[in-house]
Amino acid sequence: MIHEEYFKQLAQYWSQEMPFNKLLGLEVTQFNSQESTVSIMWHDQLIGNPEQRILHGGVTASALDLAGGVVAAANILSQLPELSPQIISQSLSRLSTIDLRTDFIRPGRGEKFIATAKIIRSGSKVAVARMEMHNEKGVHIAFGTGTYMVG
Amino acid sequence: MIHEEYFKQLAQYWSQEMPFNKLLGLEVTQFNSQESTVSIMWHDQLIGNPEQRILHGGVTASALDLAGGVVAAANILSQLPELSPQIISQSLSRLSTIDLRTDFIRPGRGEKFIATAKIIRSGSKVAVARMEMHNEKGVHIAFGTGTYMVG
Amino acid sequence: MIHEEYFKQLAQYWSQEMPFNKLLGLEVTQFNSQESTVSIMWHDQLIGNPEQRILHGGVTASALDLAGGVVAAANILSQLPELSPQIISQSLSRLSTIDLRTDFIRPGRGEKFIATAKIIRSGSKVAVARMEMHNEKGVHIAFGTGTYMVG
Amino acid sequence: MIHEEYFKQLAQYWSQEMPFNKLLGLEVTQFNSQESTVSIMWHDQLIGNPEQRILHGGVTASALDLAGGVVAAANILSQLPELSPQIISQSLSRLSTIDLRTDFIRPGRGEKFIATAKIIRSGSKVAVARMEMHNEKGVHIAFGTGTYMVG
Repeated sequence: MIHEEYFKQLAQYWSQEMPFNKLLGLEVTQFNSQESTVSIMWHDQLIGNPEQRILHGGVTASALDLAGGVVAAANILSQLPELSPQIISQSLSRLSTIDLRTDFIRPGRGEKFIATAKIIRSGSKVAVARMEMHNEKGVHIAFGTGTYMVG
Repeated sequence: MIHEEYFKQLAQYWSQEMPFNKLLGLEVTQFNSQESTVSIMWHDQLIGNPEQRILHGGVTASALDLAGGVVAAANILSQLPELSPQIISQSLSRLSTIDLRTDFIRPGRGEKFIATAKIIRSGSKVAVARMEMHNEKGVHIAFGTGTYMVG
Repeated sequence: MIHEEYFKQLAQYWSQEMPFNKLLGLEVTQFNSQESTVSIMWHDQLIGNPEQRILHGGVTASALDLAGGVVAAANILSQLPELSPQIISQSLSRLSTIDLRTDFIRPGRGEKFIATAKIIRSGSKVAVARMEMHNEKGVHIAFGTGTYMVG
Repeated sequence: MIHEEYFKQLAQYWSQEMPFNKLLGLEVTQFNSQESTVSIMWHDQLIGNPEQRILHGGVTASALDLAGGVVAAANILSQLPELSPQIISQSLSRLSTIDLRTDFIRPGRGEKFIATAKIIRSGSKVAVARMEMHNEKGVHIAFGTGTYMVG
């Protein structure tokens, strides 16, 4: 089990200390070994198409990739007999995205976007997660699937 | 055929007037109906993993998506009997990414990253492009495939 | 609305008159405009790996593609004001798979395999479906996402 | 290096002793640590759409998956210091497809179909290959990308 305290530190690390996540405003709001949630507030620099004022596809892909990576990390950490800052650091250094599919279902309009991820394959070397993104009204904007190296 | 002058304007539009591309520094450097090139210079805000100082996967996905979208746009424009600012604007308003697969092959290290796209399916409604990204030394960092709505 | 009678004819057409579906034993068991179900019984000719006696990945991909195609077809038919054998035939002649992602989660072991599909993007030109495959014990074997040309 | 003799045995194993490959007529014709070629002759049982007489998408996916799996296997075998039937058998028992993307570019018409694969990621745990399928006239019918567990 991941200790409550490590949870908070990791969520803060992903949101505050990863420069690109910070640039975009991606915030890890919740995660456990099976699910994760990432949110991002609309701001004008995230616009892809200025005439239609919709989210750039790269923002959507970034949010889905982060949500998937977070649950893949939590999943592998939850399989370890014990945790320490060093063990967590070592484990996360092996984490990387192998591939990511993003399905853009509807134009990215809204004030806030919430990406959620669920583990569908849990392994010691490779994990796979399925993701969804919706806006603050519950309108689905994107779906995705990510394959992650975890060991 | 896309007139040389429209080329320059479109490349400038994608690089300078799309807020997210500008935020990241994505620059459309070349394109025709079959191929496109997008480049991005390294800067610290693009870092995904601060300890390893490598590109965030979302940056890679954004660059590949832009390269694919540009060649899909050029491909559909090249099928039109004539072009005008209005016709181009109408045609681009119908352009959107349906889905995107990104394969992260090697850590994103380098000073400059170049994404190239080639059309593999050319249609009046849907186009498909295959993409690659390498750094200034020619090291391959990512591959991708994008499906685009064009009509 | 798709008339009950057309339902039965279409399910029979897909299962009995498409040679490759018949060769594999793929059977369309249920579908409406939002969901579909396809089933296939284990038989030894479907083995990919003879030592492990598991389903060939191509069988899994075929089942997921059929389930997605069926729900994409039903979705577009349900948007038509009226149906006739000729209208159905015309509509289905425009149906084709644009791309398909298959995630192989666990070894394909079991006596019966059930693939289900749900529409996640419903359009007049392109539809997208998410699929799952499990065996008779409810064990998940694969997931998938398919993009279909429908108009 | 994979000994010439093992080459022939493996190609024969994949073509003749894997029931589903045999059912379809998939033949491994060439491979080394970087590339592979698989061919399949047209026959009526491979038809997906009887009115249009085109290849079922599942056949295409099966051919691409086999081509990718073969080059992933050859790539990992070529990294071993020495080979024996037992070592090869152990190594192949760890081989499985993690995920596969298939892009269907043109209707599958022709007398013979040739699928080729190239390694784009070579690792001790995971390999990634890009595939293409064309007919005997060189017309491209499909593209694909596969991620394989190899260790």
